Amino acid sequence: MKVAALAGGVGGAKLAAGLQAALPPGDLTVIVNTADDFDLWGLHICPDLDTVMYTLGGVANPETGWGIKNESFDALGMLTRYGEDTWFKLGDRDLATHVLRSARLRSGELLTSITAALSNSLGIPSYILPMCDEPVSTMLDTPAGKLNFQEYFVRRGQQDEVRGIELRGVEKARSTAAVLDTLAGAETIVFCPSNPVVSIGPILAVPGMREAVTSSPAPKVAVSPIIGGRALKGPADKMLASLGHEVSATGIARMYEGLVDRMVVDHADEDERNDISDLGMTVLATDAVMRDEPDRGRLAREVLGFAGSLAGR
Amino acid sequence: MKVAALAGGVGGAKLAAGLQAALPPGDLTVIVNTADDFDLWGLHICPDLDTVMYTLGGVANPETGWGIKNESFDALGMLTRYGEDTWFKLGDRDLATHVLRSARLRSGELLTSITAALSNSLGIPSYILPMCDEPVSTMLDTPAGKLNFQEYFVRRGQQDEVRGIELRGVEKARSTAAVLDTLAGAETIVFCPSNPVVSIGPILAVPGMREAVTSSPAPKVAVSPIIGGRALKGPADKMLASLGHEVSATGIARMYEGLVDRMVVDHADEDERNDISDLGMTVLATDAVMRDEPDRGRLAREVLGFAGSLAGR
Repeated sequence: MKVAALAGGVGGAKLAAGLQAALPPGDLTVIVNTADDFDLWGLHICPDLDTVMYTLGGVANPETGWGIKNESFDALGMLTRYGEDTWFKLGDRDLATHVLRSARLRSGELLTSITAALSNSLGIPSYILPMCDEPVSTMLDTPAGKLNFQEYFVRRGQQDEVRGIELRGVEKARSTAAVLDTLAGAETIVFCPSNPVVSIGPILAVPGMREAVTSSPAPKVAVSPIIGGRALKGPADKMLASLGHEVSATGIARMYEGLVDRMVVDHADEDERNDISDLGMTVLATDAVMRDEPDRGRLAREVLGFAGSLAGR
Repeated sequence: MKVAALAGGVGGAKLAAGLQAALPPGDLTVIVNTADDFDLWGLHICPDLDTVMYTLGGVANPETGWGIKNESFDALGMLTRYGEDTWFKLGDRDLATHVLRSARLRSGELLTSITAALSNSLGIPSYILPMCDEPVSTMLDTPAGKLNFQEYFVRRGQQDEVRGIELRGVEKARSTAAVLDTLAGAETIVFCPSNPVVSIGPILAVPGMREAVTSSPAPKVAVSPIIGGRALKGPADKMLASLGHEVSATGIARMYEGLVDRMVVDHADEDERNDISDLGMTVLATDAVMRDEPDRGRLAREVLGFAGSLAGR
């Protein structure tokens, strides 16, 4: 039962972990946003890829959702001593990922291949694919000027109003063979509960991606990252509002119109069922909050069941 | 009382620390071998520069002489998990040095300037200068083939017989303005007890260096790294023997003939006094072993006194 999941950072990684737990080894492929990637001290850092990889590898920090559990921050302390601005909280183990990935990228290896090797070393039974191998950079228009995503998200603590989004470089990117093969072979496509504008949006903006999704005959299920008019984590709610989108499960459904045929919403948004149905989508209302590991597995099984993927199992 | 010291790794760093303790702040400049430098995971690592910097900065690991005290090795553990061969023991804080230096080198900054900035951040009251800004690589001819210094020294544990030394790239290097100014202004030049062939040798091989030393009117004192026919640390004794040098304080003096006018030897080598005098050098026999910090300070003061640098203080 081949499942392709589109995911950004923490929320997406949680559902991906649930899907991995619910499926036989090798049946899940996660296509991950890389438009948050940035360079720091000559290191190429891929926050969403790392969050998905650490989560699926069982080494993620359960407190934060990002980074590695029981992490030390001695290198960062030394960088502070050297007078560096250490706004991005690089752990020591995490640093190893960036050092190794950067060295391999510099030697000409593609991000897709590097990610496969690192994931494999961590014993991950799923496939993790960057959305593309070319650099794409989410640039946010704010009153403070153009900010790249990590500047906005981490350095400035999501304080700025986002008035527009530019996906710098996306026109030169293209969907990789691995991504296209995954979507062509998928029996279910899941849009994880990630930010639709800065996580799922960049994935869909990669040339070739939208066509690959729409041309797939597989059921396509989106899990709303907005519950009761709010984002559980991250700035999706504020960002959707300032960009003129409706901050609701229905608003999410509208953004995925023509791409998705099934929406999973929280019980809190049960009353939006008709509005979403009017968009031509079937709706499943359930407990969409993932508090712990059992929650992830339960929600994942419900998503798969809703897509018909668990039929006969 | 401006003092210039030529130094390699651990032994040289110890005497440099003693000199720093014995002199007013700003009076010591250490010119350091960089021919051991190498690249690992895209990081430019300068073992001797780092050993001198950590030692003068008071953060060196006193057990090993290299690396940082109370160091953690979590990044290295993660690299092992990623299947990397982790023969070079990179600590987490140490890694920060390499990451930052590599990023600055890549942006075009010179090693001399980077080293000054890092040393300054650590509050070091002396100046630390790389022997040159160009890459030079000590390649050792061994029965196992050509090995770079760290491969020979760390990876293969100094097991190979060294039959020849090539300083790859040294012909394209040149003495920096900072090094030449230091030597021109030095009132004493100290050859630290470092390996004469792979630590002091490369420094002297940089075009312009030998002339800068010989043209200086300052007293030039070498401290023998060979005591009682053995190196206290490292492979200098085996290496000197296989390269056809005499493994004794006199052998060291012969290698520095024409460059140095004073030799400091251990009491154990008192009987070589006449042989060394015959080379035109004045000899001071003392306790040349640096067991602890007080030893370093004592030996440094003796060296400076022997050079006449402590006269009138």
